[in-house]
Parts: sequence; C-alpha cells; structure tokens
Amino acid sequence: MLQNDLILRTLRGEKTERTPVWMMRQAGRYLPEYIAIRNKYGFFERCQTPALACEITIQPVDIVGVDAAILFSDILVVPQAMGLEVQLKENIGPLLPDPIKSIADLARVRVPDVDETLGYVFDAIKLIKQELNNRVPLIGFAGAPWTLLCYMVQGKGSKTFDEAKAFCFTQPELAHQLLQMITDTTIAYLKGQIKAGADVLQIFDSWGGLLSPADFELLSLQYIRQIVAAIKDDVPTIIFAKGAWHSLDAMAATGAAGLGIDWCIKPEMARQFAGKDITLQGNFDPAKLLSPIPVIEKEVKTMLQAFGPGRHIANLGHGILPNVPVDHARAFVNTVKEYQWS
Amino acid sequence: MLQNDLILRTLRGEKTERTPVWMMRQAGRYLPEYIAIRNKYGFFERCQTPALACEITIQPVDIVGVDAAILFSDILVVPQAMGLEVQLKENIGPLLPDPIKSIADLARVRVPDVDETLGYVFDAIKLIKQELNNRVPLIGFAGAPWTLLCYMVQGKGSKTFDEAKAFCFTQPELAHQLLQMITDTTIAYLKGQIKAGADVLQIFDSWGGLLSPADFELLSLQYIRQIVAAIKDDVPTIIFAKGAWHSLDAMAATGAAGLGIDWCIKPEMARQFAGKDITLQGNFDPAKLLSPIPVIEKEVKTMLQAFGPGRHIANLGHGILPNVPVDHARAFVNTVKEYQWS
Repeated sequence: MLQNDLILRTLRGEKTERTPVWMMRQAGRYLPEYIAIRNKYGFFERCQTPALACEITIQPVDIVGVDAAILFSDILVVPQAMGLEVQLKENIGPLLPDPIKSIADLARVRVPDVDETLGYVFDAIKLIKQELNNRVPLIGFAGAPWTLLCYMVQGKGSKTFDEAKAFCFTQPELAHQLLQMITDTTIAYLKGQIKAGADVLQIFDSWGGLLSPADFELLSLQYIRQIVAAIKDDVPTIIFAKGAWHSLDAMAATGAAGLGIDWCIKPEMARQFAGKDITLQGNFDPAKLLSPIPVIEKEVKTMLQAFGPGRHIANLGHGILPNVPVDHARAFVNTVKEYQWS
Repeated sequence: MLQNDLILRTLRGEKTERTPVWMMRQAGRYLPEYIAIRNKYGFFERCQTPALACEITIQPVDIVGVDAAILFSDILVVPQAMGLEVQLKENIGPLLPDPIKSIADLARVRVPDVDETLGYVFDAIKLIKQELNNRVPLIGFAGAPWTLLCYMVQGKGSKTFDEAKAFCFTQPELAHQLLQMITDTTIAYLKGQIKAGADVLQIFDSWGGLLSPADFELLSLQYIRQIVAAIKDDVPTIIFAKGAWHSLDAMAATGAAGLGIDWCIKPEMARQFAGKDITLQGNFDPAKLLSPIPVIEKEVKTMLQAFGPGRHIANLGHGILPNVPVDHARAFVNTVKEYQWS
C-alpha cells in the first residue's frame, strides 16, 4: 500500500487533506545531483540503464519532497523503438537525422515488439517501484502521437513544426497511417509500463497547441482518445496537451482522470471548459520559479486559491527550467504542502 | 480618396461588398522579387532606404493583390532608436549583443527624438503613399512594449523568453521603467507614422501569449492601452497579441478598432470573447498555405463562413512562411476576394 496516495485519491475526485504536488521535468538539470550523473553518462545510457534511470527518478522525491516520482525517460524512445535513429544532444535538443518525408520513408518504420525494444523501460520501472518502497506513486508516460510525428517528420525541434504540418496537410493518408502506427506502439508501451508497476500515466502532447481546434481533433485527439480508452480502466491517465485549452471539454470526455493545463489560462476558466468531474493539473508559470522566494510563495497561494480544494494537482504549466535554484523549487513544493484551507 | 477602402470600412463596422484581405509578412521571403532585393542590400539598409522600403512594401499589392499595403520595416527599429545595438541576421533572427540586465544597463537607453532617429520610416511612408497613389490603404505598425522588452532583455529570439520574464519578476520597478520608456517612444513613433500618412496602425505583441492572463495585463496590456488611447482618435488601431485569447475582452475595451487572432481559437469563440462591436482579423494557419490549392480554397471558405459577413478582415494567424509558393498565397487572397455571401 502506498504511504502517500494523495495524487491517486485526487485523480479519483476524493477529498484529501491537502493538494498534492509534483513538477514536470522534476528529475532534471536544475538538480546538481542530476548534473553529476549527466556528466558521466550519455542521455540514452541514462535512460537504458535501469539503475541510473532509477536513481534519477527518485532524486526529486528525496531532495525536493514531491508527492510522486515520474519515470526518467524521454518521449523519443518510442520513435527510436519504431526504427528511427534519434540523437539527443545536451543543451541542443533532439535530432532525427533521417526523418519521415515520403511513403518510402514510412517503410523504415515498424510497430515493434515493445518487450524487445523498450524492455529497459519496464525494467527501470520495476526497479524504481522497488526502491521507492511505496513512499509515493510512480508516474509513467508517453508522448502523444501528434507530438511524436512532429519530431519524426521535422527531424528536430521547431517553433512552428511547419514541415510536420505540411506533411499532414499534403499527404494526409500517410500521416494518418504513421499516427496509427505510433498509437499502436504507444498503447503496447503504456500497457507494458502498467504491467511493470506504473501507478499513473501521463500523455504529453507538447505540440498540440500548434494546431487549430479542428486539426487538433483530426491529428491529435482522435489518437489520444484511442490510447486513453485502452488504459484508463487499468490506471488513471492524465492528458497534457500544452496550449490546447480550446479542447479541454473534448479531452475531459475521453475518460482521462486528469488534464494538465499551462499558465496561459485562468484556473476558473479551465474548470469551466473542462467541467467539474475531472482533476486539473498545473499551472504555475515555470519562469516564475526564477522570482524571489517570497514572490513564489505568494503566487503559489494565489494559484491554490484559484483552483480551490479538491480535483487539483499542483504542478508547473510546463517543465522546470534548468536555471531554477533548488531552494526555489523546494519553496514551490513546500508552499503547496503547507497550505491550509481555512 | 482611397480607391479601395474595404479595410477601413470594415474596421468602422460598416457593411462591405466582400471581406477584405491582407497577409502578415506579405512583403517577405516567399516572394522572389523580395529575395532579389534582399540579396543586394542588408536588412537595415532595406528599412532605412525609403526607395527600397517602398518597393518592397508595394510588391505584394502588385503581385498578390492584397487589399492593404503594410510598411516594410521591423519592430526592432524602436530598441535601435532607443540606443541599443540590433543586428538582424538573415535566416537566424535578431541579435542584441548588449541586452538590458540591470539598472546600469538601463542608463544606456533613452526615449529618443523620433524625427531624428526614425525619420527614415516617416520618409518611407510618405514615398509609399505617393507611389500607392490611393490604390489601397497603408498599414503602419510597432511592436508592443512587452514584446520589445523581450528582445531588449533576452538579447535574441527564444521559445520561452525566460530571461526577460525573470527580469520582470525579480526587478519589477526596472521592468516597468523600461516598459514606460518603450511606450513613450512608441506613441511618438506611431504619431509620426500617422503624420506621414499611415491609414491604419497595428501593434504586434508577438510574445503576449507567453504570459499568464494576470501578467499579460500587468506587463503588456496596460502599456498597449496607453498607446491605443494616444492614437485611436487619429487612425483605427489593430492589436495583435498572438496567443492572448484570454484577454480578447480586455483588448476590445481599449478602444482598438480591430483585434488580430491566431488559428488556435475558433472564430465563433473569439467573437464571443471579443464582443460584437470590434473587427476581428485572421486567422488562417500559415502552415496551411503549404497545402494543395484546392485544400486552401476549401479551408479559406470554411474560415470565411465561421467569421460571417462584416467585422472581419481575412488574414493569416501569424506571418506567411518563407517556403509558401506564391500561387498558394494568391489562392488564399483570391478565394477571399471571390467569395460570395449567398
């Protein structure tokens, strides 16, 4: 039995003694202990070595005191497992040297056996669960098919992902074929994560907000819907489609237990769009953790009041920035943990 | 008298025979005629030479048939006039080698005499008005103070502008001092553009959407409000704060005649937020111009129907991409011009 199951209870809509808190990218570059490991091992070496992934995953639980661990990995392990070469350059970002541009390129991609290609993730999850020893839940994750397509087609990060969009707009059949292959792989991958012990799953659609509402439904949400349908009866699922505020109602209707929101929407409005029967997660501006600690404390309280008690998991609206001082991250977490509903 | 004043009448809320159309960055890299000039002259040489700025400004009126010309210039001429060095590297973006980080840096910035520092813009406007010979209106523009602060503090483009935000969050007095200096310069600059002959003014807040609704009011909208108040009685003003859908109501209340919107909001919802007494401008996804022409035609019609007749200026939701074929841009414009309300 979990000693701290605040997040699970909040996702079920139960009343809890306080609001739970974790931070996206909490196992990351703002932590000197992470940097020490990063300086010794390459990115995929860290992902693929269960002992390293385990150590990194648990660091913020010990150092910052968050209410959940999130698996240390990357959304791009899925394109890699599907047959594409993926390089992750420190401080630069991902590079896929042979992106998908045509039907011929699609022949290089497969729906893999996830135990063969991603077994190292499942091994890491088993080890993490053992080492966490039921202190807090473990969140597993995957990228949304649209966001993965962005990288698989564009080949690198982009402000607009216009090549990925052009691929979808000019070769829609090919795009949907690829999106379905990613979806099938992701479902098998997340089922493997559940089997290995993940308590919650989050789907990251980092680039969902680049699409119009109609294209978001067409290119992203219909595939997320398949994924949620396949796993929601096993573990609670959180969808985080950054910027896709316009589809909170449609995302809530998927059966997800929670929706991540960024800081560019007022909590009251997000609640209005999403309805009352779903847990919201967010939505502190990550850059605001660069503020002085008293400002952080004040703004966190404002956020908590705006969401109100229940059905809220405190988090950032995107990943923590590498230049945030650890005591600022701790101030964020502690302010949530100490907040009293009066 | 203007031969084509569709945009002016639409901004006044009058019924027009059809929806007017122009495209952000319509004088830009997708045009071979522009590339030919770019290959001969540096960026600021093109801005500062009225004959070149005039030629570039008028190119899309002749080649694509838009209903307005927009001054060829850059929002960063204002920080330059205020005393900062600005470099614009082709295909890379802006670089401000000595950005503002402290109170000492602020001493390097001044509210300049705009006739002395930006007279070349006013000269260009006078020449463009003469060469346009009343065919279509001329749109002048400036960057919003928040967006200019982003570059003046961060020193270059960024996905998150976290250094600019940290500057505002940790040194708020300094930030507001700088924002007020930019505002004062911008008001004088836009009044100069009006005097020189600009028929409409647009304020570009490209990075407004990076702020939370509360910070958008604090760091951006209160300064935009000052600018609109200073010019709205002279010429109609359009505010384009990309991504700041949450504040359409507050922007409408500034007295602006039009609001630009991006493609990530449904026209019906934008209308609901902005109210019925303001003209909306947008909101075609720029990447969709990479679609086959029949798809462009179909999607443009869908957009026109969603906005309905009146109080709408057809435009993209952001600048046209450099890799858009000219005949695709022309298909966008022509579909709007030929559309019949049945």
